[in-house]
Amino acid sequence: MQKRKLETCFSPALFEAEGHTSSIVVIIDILRASSAICTAFANGAAEIIPVSEVSEAKAYKSKGYLVAAERDGFVLDFADFGNSPFNFTKEKVSGKTIVYSTTNGTGLINLALLAYMTVVGSFLNIGALTQWLIKQDKDVLLLCAGWKNRFNIEDTVCAGAIADALMKSNCYSTICDSTIAAMDLWSLASPDLPGYIEKAAQRTRLRDKKLDDCIEFCLTSDFTDKIPVMRNGALTAII
Amino acid sequence: MQKRKLETCFSPALFEAEGHTSSIVVIIDILRASSAICTAFANGAAEIIPVSEVSEAKAYKSKGYLVAAERDGFVLDFADFGNSPFNFTKEKVSGKTIVYSTTNGTGLINLALLAYMTVVGSFLNIGALTQWLIKQDKDVLLLCAGWKNRFNIEDTVCAGAIADALMKSNCYSTICDSTIAAMDLWSLASPDLPGYIEKAAQRTRLRDKKLDDCIEFCLTSDFTDKIPVMRNGALTAII
Repeated sequence: MQKRKLETCFSPALFEAEGHTSSIVVIIDILRASSAICTAFANGAAEIIPVSEVSEAKAYKSKGYLVAAERDGFVLDFADFGNSPFNFTKEKVSGKTIVYSTTNGTGLINLALLAYMTVVGSFLNIGALTQWLIKQDKDVLLLCAGWKNRFNIEDTVCAGAIADALMKSNCYSTICDSTIAAMDLWSLASPDLPGYIEKAAQRTRLRDKKLDDCIEFCLTSDFTDKIPVMRNGALTAII
Repeated sequence: MQKRKLETCFSPALFEAEGHTSSIVVIIDILRASSAICTAFANGAAEIIPVSEVSEAKAYKSKGYLVAAERDGFVLDFADFGNSPFNFTKEKVSGKTIVYSTTNGTGLINLALLAYMTVVGSFLNIGALTQWLIKQDKDVLLLCAGWKNRFNIEDTVCAGAIADALMKSNCYSTICDSTIAAMDLWSLASPDLPGYIEKAAQRTRLRDKKLDDCIEFCLTSDFTDKIPVMRNGALTAII
C-alpha cells in the first residue's frame, strides 16, 4: 500500500495552497483560536463562521449574530466575547451559530479553502482527530498559525504530537523537515508540556495581558471528540 | 548593560528586512553555499560576488570572471564549477575574484542588504564567527536559507549551535521562538551531528544526485577563522 504524505507548515506565509488541493489540512492555533473552536463544539455550538476582517465581524453583529472577535488578545468593543476557550460555555453557545474573528487563526482557515478538506486541531481533540485522520485515505498537511506569520513553539509542538500519532499508525511517510523537527520538539516537550510551553513567546504575551488563565486547559489532551470541519464557509463538527 | 537581541528566521519568505536594519545578519546555508564560501576564503579567495540570476552569472563569465554557478545542485554549463566546497581549492581560488550563484544562498545574501552588516556562517567558521559576534555590540539575526523557502533541518541546527554559543556569552537575550526551537534541535543533534543530519531532506537529495561527498566536511567545526562579510556588493573575509 502506498503511504500517504504527511507534511507540516510552520507559518501561513510558507503555505503553498496549490500543493495541497488533495490533502486534508489541519489548522493548529492552540493559544487560543483552535482550542476555543474545539471547546465551542464540545459545548454544543451548531456552527462557527470564521471571518478574517473586523468589518465583516461587525456586519454580522449588526445582523444579530453572536460574535467572538479579538485582536492581539483583546476583545473588540462590539463583540460578545473574545477568544478564550472559557468564553465558549454551554450556556452561551449551545445550539448557536457563532461568528469568529481572531488575529491569526480564522484568516488561516479561509486561506486553506483550496484544500480537499480543512479541519481544526488542538490538544483538546487530538485523540479523536488522529484516529479520524488515520481512517481517511488522504495526504495530511499540519498548518501552524504561528504568530503574525512567524514560527511559534506551541503550535509546532502540537503539530509534532499529531505527526507522532499519525506516523505510529504506519499509514504515512514524510520527507518534510518541518514534520521531523516538530516531532523532535514534541519529544522534548511531552514529558512536561506546561513546563516546555513556559519558553514560548506567546506564553509571555498572554501572561503580560493577564490572558493566561486558559493555557493549562489548552494543553489538555482529549477534552472532546469533536472535529471541526470547514464546509460551505462555516465550521461544523464531525463525529 | 542592556542585552542585545538574538533572533532566528527559518526561511527567506519569513525575513522582515525592515526589522533588522541595525542588526548583523548571519546567512546560513550549510549544504552547501555558506560552507563553500567559507572554504573559498580559507583557501585564499580575494573576493566573492554573489549574484541571484543565472543571466548575471553568464554575463560575468563572458567578461572573463571565474564563475561558480549551480541550480538544484547541478553545475550550469557555462560555469567553471558548482558549489561543492571541494571545488574551491587553493589552486583554483587563491587571490581570485569569484562570481557565485546558487539555488538558495546567494539570493539570500542580497536580500539582507538593508541590514547593518551581513556575514556568512557555517560550522566551518562557527568558533571564529561567534567570538567575533560577541565582540560587536549589535543585535543578531540568524537567517537560514532553507530550501525553496521551506524550513530545513541542517541550517536550523547550525543556527541553534551559533545561538547556543551566543547565549552562553550572556550578552544576548531572546524572546524568539525560532531561536529557542533551533537551540533545542541543536541539543538533540550535537551528540551525533552526521547521524542527525541523516534525517534531513537535503541529505537525501544530495545522496540521490551523488553530491553528498562533502557533507561530513560541511559538518566540521572550525576549519577556518575567516568570516565572509558583504561590502559594496561583494564578500571579503574579515580576520
